[in-house]
Amino acid sequence: MKAEIIAVGSELLTPDRVDTNSLFLTAELNKLGIEVTRKGVVGDKREDIRDAFALSMARADVVIASGGLGPTEDDLTRDVAADLLGRKLESNPDVLLAIQERFRRIGRQMAEVNARQAMVPEGATALENLKGTAPGLWMEADGHLLILLPGPPNELQAMFARQVAERLAKRSGNVRQVTRELRVVGMPESDLDQRISPIYTKYHDVQTTILAAPGEIQIHLRAWTADAQGIAVVLDEMVERISMALAENVYTTMGESLEEVVANALTLNAATISTAESCTGGLLAERLTRTPGSSNYFLGGVVSYSNELKSAWVDVPAEIIESRGAVSPEVAVALADGIRRRTGSTLGVGITGVAGPAGGTPEKPVGLVHIALANGATPRERGLHFPGDRERVRWQASQTALDMVRRYFLYGPGKRPGAKT
Amino acid sequence: MKAEIIAVGSELLTPDRVDTNSLFLTAELNKLGIEVTRKGVVGDKREDIRDAFALSMARADVVIASGGLGPTEDDLTRDVAADLLGRKLESNPDVLLAIQERFRRIGRQMAEVNARQAMVPEGATALENLKGTAPGLWMEADGHLLILLPGPPNELQAMFARQVAERLAKRSGNVRQVTRELRVVGMPESDLDQRISPIYTKYHDVQTTILAAPGEIQIHLRAWTADAQGIAVVLDEMVERISMALAENVYTTMGESLEEVVANALTLNAATISTAESCTGGLLAERLTRTPGSSNYFLGGVVSYSNELKSAWVDVPAEIIESRGAVSPEVAVALADGIRRRTGSTLGVGITGVAGPAGGTPEKPVGLVHIALANGATPRERGLHFPGDRERVRWQASQTALDMVRRYFLYGPGKRPGAKT
Repeated sequence: MKAEIIAVGSELLTPDRVDTNSLFLTAELNKLGIEVTRKGVVGDKREDIRDAFALSMARADVVIASGGLGPTEDDLTRDVAADLLGRKLESNPDVLLAIQERFRRIGRQMAEVNARQAMVPEGATALENLKGTAPGLWMEADGHLLILLPGPPNELQAMFARQVAERLAKRSGNVRQVTRELRVVGMPESDLDQRISPIYTKYHDVQTTILAAPGEIQIHLRAWTADAQGIAVVLDEMVERISMALAENVYTTMGESLEEVVANALTLNAATISTAESCTGGLLAERLTRTPGSSNYFLGGVVSYSNELKSAWVDVPAEIIESRGAVSPEVAVALADGIRRRTGSTLGVGITGVAGPAGGTPEKPVGLVHIALANGATPRERGLHFPGDRERVRWQASQTALDMVRRYFLYGPGKRPGAKT
Repeated sequence: MKAEIIAVGSELLTPDRVDTNSLFLTAELNKLGIEVTRKGVVGDKREDIRDAFALSMARADVVIASGGLGPTEDDLTRDVAADLLGRKLESNPDVLLAIQERFRRIGRQMAEVNARQAMVPEGATALENLKGTAPGLWMEADGHLLILLPGPPNELQAMFARQVAERLAKRSGNVRQVTRELRVVGMPESDLDQRISPIYTKYHDVQTTILAAPGEIQIHLRAWTADAQGIAVVLDEMVERISMALAENVYTTMGESLEEVVANALTLNAATISTAESCTGGLLAERLTRTPGSSNYFLGGVVSYSNELKSAWVDVPAEIIESRGAVSPEVAVALADGIRRRTGSTLGVGITGVAGPAGGTPEKPVGLVHIALANGATPRERGLHFPGDRERVRWQASQTALDMVRRYFLYGPGKRPGAKT
């Protein structure tokens, strides 16, 4: 089965808003074995909406439109759909009651204009909206489906899950999309592709997509199949072979964020962590505390921008700052070791660098960052030169710091190659 | 003039990628007085691309397509466009030379397959690509324009700026879009709309869009006009009237971020700042240091997650934590005052709260945050209950903290109502 998605709304034709409902809908449709073949955006103009609906219905088995179901004059999709399919609009007493009830619950009188939302085309099924007033509509014509959903993402998602998914599943046959995902940190895209292209090119029924973001690469594997169990075996084999080829660079095959993987490693090892940051300005602490329950492993952090505070807060000797410079491996290690001792945590992380755009020198250019991890025995330190602007340099530095913590636990503390403990 | 934008690429029909090129293109086209009436996404299929190009060219004066200009078999837009307009593709020696030259510069041999990118349809103009190998194409048929641009955003944006904008400006007549923007913090959308709808509804030629995000609202004003100077007067009058109605809640009419406004206020007042955060985990420090040059006003910050560190690092008396609880107005004030004294900064900010999802109690529910601003005289403190998940609570808390700093400087330090200094 093929689907097309149409977002209705003039605000989606401005530079400020992008249609993200279609990403959710695509993921859900794919799970049901329905492929999305086109997406489009039209403004709140009767003839444009009608034209878009007519063309999409002629091409696809399922057309899903979002938006334009509100109570105002601008909300046209209900009218246009009825008109296009030659159906009369009639007020549905059950739907009207549900809307009135909803207003009662929030302690307000239903405005007259909201009665429009109870208009349902002949032969259409109204889809209940548990998160708002606008009901959705499910319409059929000549074996094609036209499904109208409200624009606000929380309303659309709840309605799809409760009212649409099951109905669609009954029609979509037994072809399904099965997916796997690997997330990788610590290697460039070209190296990654060189290592894994001999693998994925052999799997002709699996669509492989490599998405590179700063400091991270995602590998998506997708297959369409009527034999979900059979393809699951194939995909798992692919995941295993790719994981072998990329080794410890793969940080998850379960869809977790790098923060979550690090949080789990700290929790599993009953370890605690603290941070002393300069150029990242608190970004590492912020990422370590994004995960719920972070107070179990995160003790505290300092953002010691000034040299005085580097000494006062985490005991970085002033003479090291003077002799080596604030951006140096020695200061990174002193930050990591100092914060670890001050907080009594298992691990300490220190970051110092030049985020830019100013402050670079020929010896210490913008993008140079030193990151250290201290465990009370042998500290690890990495000096890296990140490309990009201030935001990107800071992000990549925090990504590398998290990855250093992840790798520390990969071999088990004390079992790491080169560690003395 | 009307334009349609088509993004070509099967990866844009997956749940992972959204077409953002169209946002850039829309902003640029609008500046030239060209309205975007539809947007669409098609996969890498010859018949789908052809169908989309044909329909869009029949409807719009200008059609801009992005993607599908690479050297591989999947890259079809060049071929399809030539075929659709009945033009022969011929290898263009200048373009071929430019591609070879680009490969030479990066020290690589041009692969045979890249020669495809030098194929130019009869009568088309090749658009030089300074950031990649794929040239763009400018084609005309029956008074309609078809412009093909490469998919990578940096290539597309550079090519539009250098090769497309000026050529389009010559055709787009003298109608232009003129815009203004106001950014507002510290009031709910419903209050805002109540205050300003009596104003903006009077301006029938100006399109007003209100975009609400957590902790912030943007008001966009847009007008299409042949008389840019005349409408500028009208828009400036609107900005002034809306600014009067919303008073100090408007934090900029110049498009700056809240971080930048706060950075400017600190710099102008030669003031410094430091932070002591608990539930925001470093987010406030991170936002204060996003702006280049932040070392001029940001001295340092601590993330004192544990109660011990609240006392050890910023001298919060243990008995206050015990009697009032870690999440209390008293602890927020002690954090703000303590960090200010420890760093010697002009201002100190303290944040403590329950970010969730766990840790809430009936008295101190998830979302409750206390934020204090200390200046050595009268501290200010606000207790707020933010809706939403952990990420949203943390964001709104940092937004409120930044806003408290902004408002502190609005009346000039020492001149604030209620201040004793």
